[in-house]
Amino acid sequence: MLIVQKFGGSSVANPERIKRVADRVWRTRQEGNEVVVVVSAMGDTTDELIALARQLSDDPAAREMDQLLATGEQVSIALLTMALHELGAQAVSLTGPQAGIATDGVYGKAAITGVAAARLRAELAAGKIVVVAGFQGLAPNGDVTTLGRGGSDTTAVAIAAALQADRCEIYTDVDGVYTADPRVVPEASKLPVISHDEMLELASLGAVVLHPRSVELAKLYGVPLVVRSSFNDNPGTLVKEDDGMERAHMVSGVAHDLNVAKIGIFDVLDQPGIAYRLFAALAEEKINVDMIIQGATRNGRNDIAFTVSRTDLKKALAVVEKVKEAVGAKGYTYDDRVAKVSIVGAGMITRPGVAAAMFEALSAEGINIEMISTSEIKVSCVIKESEAQRAVQALHRKFGLDAVGQN
Amino acid sequence: MLIVQKFGGSSVANPERIKRVADRVWRTRQEGNEVVVVVSAMGDTTDELIALARQLSDDPAAREMDQLLATGEQVSIALLTMALHELGAQAVSLTGPQAGIATDGVYGKAAITGVAAARLRAELAAGKIVVVAGFQGLAPNGDVTTLGRGGSDTTAVAIAAALQADRCEIYTDVDGVYTADPRVVPEASKLPVISHDEMLELASLGAVVLHPRSVELAKLYGVPLVVRSSFNDNPGTLVKEDDGMERAHMVSGVAHDLNVAKIGIFDVLDQPGIAYRLFAALAEEKINVDMIIQGATRNGRNDIAFTVSRTDLKKALAVVEKVKEAVGAKGYTYDDRVAKVSIVGAGMITRPGVAAAMFEALSAEGINIEMISTSEIKVSCVIKESEAQRAVQALHRKFGLDAVGQN
Repeated sequence: MLIVQKFGGSSVANPERIKRVADRVWRTRQEGNEVVVVVSAMGDTTDELIALARQLSDDPAAREMDQLLATGEQVSIALLTMALHELGAQAVSLTGPQAGIATDGVYGKAAITGVAAARLRAELAAGKIVVVAGFQGLAPNGDVTTLGRGGSDTTAVAIAAALQADRCEIYTDVDGVYTADPRVVPEASKLPVISHDEMLELASLGAVVLHPRSVELAKLYGVPLVVRSSFNDNPGTLVKEDDGMERAHMVSGVAHDLNVAKIGIFDVLDQPGIAYRLFAALAEEKINVDMIIQGATRNGRNDIAFTVSRTDLKKALAVVEKVKEAVGAKGYTYDDRVAKVSIVGAGMITRPGVAAAMFEALSAEGINIEMISTSEIKVSCVIKESEAQRAVQALHRKFGLDAVGQN
Repeated sequence: MLIVQKFGGSSVANPERIKRVADRVWRTRQEGNEVVVVVSAMGDTTDELIALARQLSDDPAAREMDQLLATGEQVSIALLTMALHELGAQAVSLTGPQAGIATDGVYGKAAITGVAAARLRAELAAGKIVVVAGFQGLAPNGDVTTLGRGGSDTTAVAIAAALQADRCEIYTDVDGVYTADPRVVPEASKLPVISHDEMLELASLGAVVLHPRSVELAKLYGVPLVVRSSFNDNPGTLVKEDDGMERAHMVSGVAHDLNVAKIGIFDVLDQPGIAYRLFAALAEEKINVDMIIQGATRNGRNDIAFTVSRTDLKKALAVVEKVKEAVGAKGYTYDDRVAKVSIVGAGMITRPGVAAAMFEALSAEGINIEMISTSEIKVSCVIKESEAQRAVQALHRKFGLDAVGQN
């Protein structure tokens, strides 16, 4: 089998842990598999580099931040490769650019546009374990670009897709995907299998085990993902293509996301192209808009509300300030003390009334719903941040997930 | 003017010092010059990375060490560029590979084979200060290779040569080139001007202000070098092509080198090709041999003695062990407690008796000479390490250099 294994920063935080990762990789190789390993920067390296940059500039250029941060993974790949050599393995390290990870060149937030896998294939064919730097790739102009949040997972999946790997294993500090965050819901239990779509919804909704970018890519290329702990040998959760079988539970999990901010714009002109103008301006600044609600028209005017991540709030407000006259808005507000709670399950497609059951559970707790968004396999509600924990616990109970753990 | 400025690790050891370097670079730019800056890794970064590698392997692969160490300069170029932006300068950082520094691909000890300066020229033409990572370049196979000792100086000179820069300024922690190491000879004084050849001899002889590689390259391409302190505005020492004028002193300086080990091989066959076999085997291992002495033939056999740097001693002994039978040697010895003291001066070409005067001075101090080597502008003697300081002081006095400082 060809297996891609990805280890995050905490798994390679110090030489001892790097040796432990090397042991696991080498074991996988000795079982007869070809192995590509993708690693993040060691522990707090990225934060330390950012702190160093802040001593020189309050607002360092994105290109130079990428040049700086890309060194973090380059250090880990060299060290892990040395540890593998020490075990007697043949191994070689490749930076993102060396591994052929091509990006669109957007500094700090680049998207992978392709993997020129010739060198990867050649090193594998030579019997080597290939250790690749996650989170980075080569821009068309020859610059290094980092991939932003979830970048290392995405690197691993992109390589698995390009090499048609049998499996992409994501090692993390949790045992797998849970029905809810165990820190919030002690009764939460680990799911042995979940579909790409469900995982995608969970990831989008703030269950931070896997970044949605990587799950999306895995779904697109049919890459089976395994989420496992780097600290034990538990089997983890397999994320794979939906096999369409009946499910025991209509809801697989409850997710919550605190990195949410809400922006409301009042009395926007109800004319074609108005929403486009606003959201195109946000997209231009690479701000991801999550939920969008447009109310009913009153006197030829609308209210529009949307959510962004809290980290993007400042940038988003600057865009709103800039376009508010063009869209004829009378004013705007924002709130960064909100949270999003969501239920996810491929089973809900065939079972009506799931959304209603969710609203009922929240209402029974006296929790007010500020925004609602639905897809075929999830329902999300924006509520007050202070009520998020109570909401997650109530939903976990409501949909019979507290019982799953006892099976 | 187009000026290349090179700053070593101690000049960029922390954010405060990086800001000071940025100030100086920006001042040079504002005076109307085009500026390329070459920087080393911050302070002890390289040592820290090496220590990290040692925790994973006693003998890490050279390729992976290069992958690891190259991150050191990449951090400094990004930070210095941010500091320049903060001053309002337009600046861009380039790694060695991005700057077009091509190498022969010898890991850990690569030689620069050329500079593909298109990007450097384009960035300069766009009005930018270009900040380049020293000590590294791109191997033909796409790997990063480090240049080994003196690498950053060599990067600076290679870029100055490729761009036909008007001047290459090497910033260091001393004020310039001295008649001897001021720590050994308090009376030593700074030389305002010195020829490439003299500097080359001094550098070869262990006066570590500039690495001989960089001086050689500067001489080859006629690049004027300026050695200056990064901590003050003193004019430093100009290293330039010899103008052939009469010199006040036949000896410009006294150098000493403690990184010397001596190997002696006994009773080698006196046949053609024997010396070749030995030194070709050493060259194959990339071991630089400095002095070579072959005694008179006795009974069809010779003794051969040579010196290498102490850091290469272990590797050199392994080579000797391997070839000793092929060269018919009866045995060998080594001594790593020796030192080399040398006098250098373009003036000595036209003045006979300089070598004799040197031997006289050493003899008067009761210092035994173990090996001698001469060139047109220098005389070197290998002596006991414990006598090196006394030897340097005696020679500085003997050749009237103690007086120079009073001019």
